[in-house]
Amino acid sequence: MKPISHMVHYYETDKMGVTHHSNYIRWMENARIDYLGQIGCGYAECEAMGLTAPVTGFSCRIKSSTRFGDEVLISARILKYTGVRLNFSYRVTRPDGSAVAEGETDHCFLNADGKVIALQREFPQLHENLLAQIEREKGEENHA
Amino acid sequence: MKPISHMVHYYETDKMGVTHHSNYIRWMENARIDYLGQIGCGYAECEAMGLTAPVTGFSCRIKSSTRFGDEVLISARILKYTGVRLNFSYRVTRPDGSAVAEGETDHCFLNADGKVIALQREFPQLHENLLAQIEREKGEENHA
Amino acid sequence: MKPISHMVHYYETDKMGVTHHSNYIRWMENARIDYLGQIGCGYAECEAMGLTAPVTGFSCRIKSSTRFGDEVLISARILKYTGVRLNFSYRVTRPDGSAVAEGETDHCFLNADGKVIALQREFPQLHENLLAQIEREKGEENHA
Amino acid sequence: MKPISHMVHYYETDKMGVTHHSNYIRWMENARIDYLGQIGCGYAECEAMGLTAPVTGFSCRIKSSTRFGDEVLISARILKYTGVRLNFSYRVTRPDGSAVAEGETDHCFLNADGKVIALQREFPQLHENLLAQIEREKGEENHA
Repeated sequence: MKPISHMVHYYETDKMGVTHHSNYIRWMENARIDYLGQIGCGYAECEAMGLTAPVTGFSCRIKSSTRFGDEVLISARILKYTGVRLNFSYRVTRPDGSAVAEGETDHCFLNADGKVIALQREFPQLHENLLAQIEREKGEENHA
Repeated sequence: MKPISHMVHYYETDKMGVTHHSNYIRWMENARIDYLGQIGCGYAECEAMGLTAPVTGFSCRIKSSTRFGDEVLISARILKYTGVRLNFSYRVTRPDGSAVAEGETDHCFLNADGKVIALQREFPQLHENLLAQIEREKGEENHA
Repeated sequence: MKPISHMVHYYETDKMGVTHHSNYIRWMENARIDYLGQIGCGYAECEAMGLTAPVTGFSCRIKSSTRFGDEVLISARILKYTGVRLNFSYRVTRPDGSAVAEGETDHCFLNADGKVIALQREFPQLHENLLAQIEREKGEENHA
Repeated sequence: MKPISHMVHYYETDKMGVTHHSNYIRWMENARIDYLGQIGCGYAECEAMGLTAPVTGFSCRIKSSTRFGDEVLISARILKYTGVRLNFSYRVTRPDGSAVAEGETDHCFLNADGKVIALQREFPQLHENLLAQIEREKGEENHA
């Protein structure tokens, strides 16, 4: 899976001269959306079907601050999927591979009425896509 | 009409050490929403009826930059209302009355299907509220 | 310690119709800044002395989503302080006390040159303020 | 001059389901920074020399709303330069060329002490770069 690239915007900095930490969680959202699109679970398509996967928790550890104009790469992968809940992990690095930040997000699934649902039951195709992707990533790890 | 008060947040500053200009237009939105609530045209109520008034244009002139922790007062008033379009003007000041910024926003009206509508025809009660408010403000100006 | 109050702004919502999760970490910043001001460690004063305490990590669990216009109360307290690192915990509730979110942030201390410092050694007065506050909070817990 | 490309982020939408208008002025900032880098007046380099060009005014007219995932192109050009003040104009379009928004920003120049300066006098090389660029754009218009 290809990471996304991001240049730190001027408006993402704060008076300390570095990227405001709230932006890391936004970049992770961008990476997650890109990732889900790559595996056939596009956000726009899911929302058109009445499915949303809101963030119910998130965490981030910043290893190295970033500054205006810095390029960062953000990669997402599925950490855990239970059919009812989905967890992502993220790595933010510089182009040379050095660590910038790591994070996780937790998600549940909601239908168009805002009710918590089991993806497995109500959207079996997406469930299969997620399982297939998890298998694929496991295979890659074994080969790595 | 009472202005709203706002303390400049840390995350509203940028690396120049002052408030990023995009926040002024956000503060004006807060003032507009407060103002409309005061005159019986609350945003939440309007949206529940299927009415939105998106911003179709905006402008801002910054007279004096603001910094983290500064208090500002933001007041909104109706500049023009044609039944189809609505314009607001805003003043941002410090508590001592000195000027921080001025701005305007332009709005049209959309129904639940996203179609441009004449407020006068489709929401006559809100139309009356706006006209009454405009009369009230004219009266206040004549007395001032 | 008094929590801060916040009304969810229109621009803090996203197309899902709820508060975008990145805002919770911003509200926590506001609560932390208010708290530090209350205990004699104001952000602006610290930065004027060349001291910053950047966020090196953060986490948040959202219990109940919030919407435009909702009022929330955000309280901060010191979770742990080692003289070198500082951790805060936060609670976001509705005015009726029901849970909205919980979170933590981790901080180190930097001097004007951007070097990591021991607060204890370089800013002993602030160190004493933090210790006194931790004692005070322990006392309150024992009485509660 | 090449426009920049931007995909509307999820966190740039609001509960109306469209891009929050405050983001247009942020995209224009990105386009301006890119433009200035292309003509040898990079933001980071200027700030390293103690020169900033804060926004003293801005305006935007939204012709067509945008939604999550939409691609937009943002182009910047110098509208007016007096040696003391600088004005930019911007066009936001879809990849098919259809109009999304137009805008302007006004800037003054500040030195490291935050004093308003004449660029012409204090940074003659940058002054020459701007004049050369204005001539180039005039030439292109005459040929267009």
